[in-house]
Amino acid sequence: MRDDTIEIERIIIINNRRIPKLGNIFYSNTFLYFRDQVSLFLANSLYDEDPDDAAMLLLDLCTSGFNRRLILELRHANNILADQIADRAVQIFMKIYHKCLVRHHAD
Amino acid sequence: MRDDTIEIERIIIINNRRIPKLGNIFYSNTFLYFRDQVSLFLANSLYDEDPDDAAMLLLDLCTSGFNRRLILELRHANNILADQIADRAVQIFMKIYHKCLVRHHAD
Repeated sequence: MRDDTIEIERIIIINNRRIPKLGNIFYSNTFLYFRDQVSLFLANSLYDEDPDDAAMLLLDLCTSGFNRRLILELRHANNILADQIADRAVQIFMKIYHKCLVRHHAD
Repeated sequence: MRDDTIEIERIIIINNRRIPKLGNIFYSNTFLYFRDQVSLFLANSLYDEDPDDAAMLLLDLCTSGFNRRLILELRHANNILADQIADRAVQIFMKIYHKCLVRHHAD
């Protein structure tokens, strides 16, 4: 996530008791919106599986603990860990969904 | 998570710029500590797999978006969704790790 996205999320966490609807608006327009975009993309490639579930799994695997670290402003020393988590996320996602993926191209 | 745990995390997010070490201490003593406990438990049951990775996956699957919702104080209407997410977390975890689990009892 970009630094200003984190900054906005911090501001909303800090202020959402004074303006109670803020958290819901933020959540719907960022996290749920992004999940829906991934879901739309996956809907073309999956059969017999709920694309929302698949999108949620992919996002959970990719963000693995990062959101909490970013909100608490704990930085990684380098990008190696991020690359490892991305590789692992794709491996796990493909293990779960490889039988349900529509092949758009000939093998 | 319990309400007071959420409250403490909110207070730390709000104050960790004034007391920069706070976030790190909190993260190590809660999230990492919990992951290590799950990892110790799994280490007895897994072979040929990193128990830290397995613990991380199980926690990611179980917390799926919940932490963000709780910190933003968005509540679910009931526990049905939580039960569905728990069932799904275990199904996915077993799909990934069923070949690596040591059987402690005769089948």
